[in-house]
Amino acid sequence: MKIIEGGVCAVKGILAGGCKKGKHGVGIIYTGKSTAVAVYTSNRIKAEPLKLTMKNLEDGRISAIIANSGNANCFTGSEGMKDALRMAKLTADGLLIPEREVAVASTGIIGRKMPMDIIEPLIQNVLEDLENSPKGSRKFAEAIMTTDSFPKEFAVEFELDDGNIAKIGGVAKGSGMIAPNMATMLSFITTDVKASSNQLKEALKKAVDESFNMLIVDGDESTNDMVILAATGKSGQIDDNFQEALNLVCRELAKMIAKDGEGATKYMEVEVLNAKSQEDARRVARTVASSSLVKTALFGADPNWGRIIAAIGYSGAMIDEKKVSIILEGENRSIELIKEGMIALENSRGLKIAAGIMNEDEIRIIIDLGIGKEKAKAYGCDLTYDYVKINAEYTT
Amino acid sequence: MKIIEGGVCAVKGILAGGCKKGKHGVGIIYTGKSTAVAVYTSNRIKAEPLKLTMKNLEDGRISAIIANSGNANCFTGSEGMKDALRMAKLTADGLLIPEREVAVASTGIIGRKMPMDIIEPLIQNVLEDLENSPKGSRKFAEAIMTTDSFPKEFAVEFELDDGNIAKIGGVAKGSGMIAPNMATMLSFITTDVKASSNQLKEALKKAVDESFNMLIVDGDESTNDMVILAATGKSGQIDDNFQEALNLVCRELAKMIAKDGEGATKYMEVEVLNAKSQEDARRVARTVASSSLVKTALFGADPNWGRIIAAIGYSGAMIDEKKVSIILEGENRSIELIKEGMIALENSRGLKIAAGIMNEDEIRIIIDLGIGKEKAKAYGCDLTYDYVKINAEYTT
Repeated sequence: MKIIEGGVCAVKGILAGGCKKGKHGVGIIYTGKSTAVAVYTSNRIKAEPLKLTMKNLEDGRISAIIANSGNANCFTGSEGMKDALRMAKLTADGLLIPEREVAVASTGIIGRKMPMDIIEPLIQNVLEDLENSPKGSRKFAEAIMTTDSFPKEFAVEFELDDGNIAKIGGVAKGSGMIAPNMATMLSFITTDVKASSNQLKEALKKAVDESFNMLIVDGDESTNDMVILAATGKSGQIDDNFQEALNLVCRELAKMIAKDGEGATKYMEVEVLNAKSQEDARRVARTVASSSLVKTALFGADPNWGRIIAAIGYSGAMIDEKKVSIILEGENRSIELIKEGMIALENSRGLKIAAGIMNEDEIRIIIDLGIGKEKAKAYGCDLTYDYVKINAEYTT
Repeated sequence: MKIIEGGVCAVKGILAGGCKKGKHGVGIIYTGKSTAVAVYTSNRIKAEPLKLTMKNLEDGRISAIIANSGNANCFTGSEGMKDALRMAKLTADGLLIPEREVAVASTGIIGRKMPMDIIEPLIQNVLEDLENSPKGSRKFAEAIMTTDSFPKEFAVEFELDDGNIAKIGGVAKGSGMIAPNMATMLSFITTDVKASSNQLKEALKKAVDESFNMLIVDGDESTNDMVILAATGKSGQIDDNFQEALNLVCRELAKMIAKDGEGATKYMEVEVLNAKSQEDARRVARTVASSSLVKTALFGADPNWGRIIAAIGYSGAMIDEKKVSIILEGENRSIELIKEGMIALENSRGLKIAAGIMNEDEIRIIIDLGIGKEKAKAYGCDLTYDYVKINAEYTT
């Protein structure tokens, strides 16, 4: 497997582009006739474009994706649906494809009418400037940013069992309202493998479960989250190599979102080992990565493992206090905080190392529950003054 | 029902006192032979004093409570249990009561050995200075404060059906790690009603369910939470008047904790009406009060109801988007944000009023789900720079 350039445009035949005006952006991906599947937010309030996309993807096919930033088009009723339909129609007309082969996604503020007077000209601009190049994908990735501080793309090339070389390319956006929520998490992934929509659905679900679904910035879940996977079918047959590559793409995009968490100064991975059940492993990893107290301790570079222990305890997972071990890992060093229920960090040298690791930019917390065989990993960040600032001032 | 002075000492025969030295404090309540029950944290990691108190309260009787602040005596193993037992023994010796009639509670940092060289002399000081007076209760309330900015006491007097006048007095502490958690939530309540431990248990569970269990500061749940209710039995028989009075005492103490949330500048009540089930009502109220985005919007005085809608949606409760109404209420005014699924806040005058209410110190968010008859209320506060500051620097 090889990491390559080009985001969604790493896949042959995919055209992409994007354009911003002030807070508002529009991005379009032309996939050509592709098999496509998606996973959506489990929030019971769903944005209008999301409802439309769910309908349009029912038969497992799309030819294009249009996404806008700056307005979530959520809680906007029939007017909002009209605007989502209009976005699909303009895209379809420009690309000479049927309207119902367009997926629509939005991200931004909830409950405000779409500023179609700004959006429509942006759509026309983007339609005139689609290209199969790293630049096209990058423009798309930038157009859908809200509070994101950098565009998020990742692509790989790999060999299928049938000897064909296949590719997967992805873009994502997301920074806050992540568990995922306000800025919303969106990701669009293209590939050239041949697959039925059922095969793609299964593969996407697996990949999302261990990546985007283990990603926490603030625990607020958006009304607009959506991950779309579109396969052109120009390369070989889907297989386990594809699954492995898709997992990697989703994981790397999820990590980028965690690193770009609103106001975040540090990235945190929480790995849980030897849990009694898979669900317990996931629960502990997510609870620790979600804890406001762990997140502020991270910001303060404070190796306060008591907060980690407390979060493990209230996660709801089965634990045996005497079997729990906790290791803190930095780039080139690691230290045991707890070893099988006993405090391992007794002397001041140990404390100094632990504080040193907490001062690094990327920190791994490894929790060995010692009572089973299941594991899971969650991706998160610290809770900082800037998170509060960004979100106290978002709509003003 | 009449609100009275005196905290736990409002009840005849109760002695209380407390003393602080630096970060460490000790408080003692002498209840005399009382029927007593408690509710504890559901965190699976439990502090040593909590384990001891669970055992000592098995037969539903206590004569005294000792609590310390500054150290949670949690994850401290057999050494920690020895320290908790020592605290019980010193209290018992000083008051000439059996050791196992002492309840022990701790709050503070997790995973550090108890500084018994500081705690023991404090216990002796307090034992010499117990009194049945508002001052005694106040000293206790102050001694158990950690990041709390004010002591929390509340007491009422009411008439029982049998004609007797009864009293309930309570103290509480709590500021962060509240959902409740680090600073921990502790509350001790005294009364003079006559009741079996089963009657008390049922009454306390009811009262806690609608007060402390609906209280959110940061969503982190402590290893040390404990609410103890002790009844001397010197007044009349327990009845519904008692339940009503106990609900009020627990609710008022819970509100004080929410108002004193770490770094909080605003107090928020979230009331949910007409939910399909009681569990749904509770879930929506808690989810909205817990949302980092609602909490930062509150801090920023931003009437961003989209975040409220999103939190309602991901609460997991059954909702019908077209039936939801949201009202924002300040001290002397209120405004409808959403009316049966439609945006009610269209003009700039409305927005100005909404922003004005968000600028007040105490804000109520009323959510009418419009699909059932159940209701619930949650108590919370805003998420501020100071929350981050307090918790980034807690152990340093």
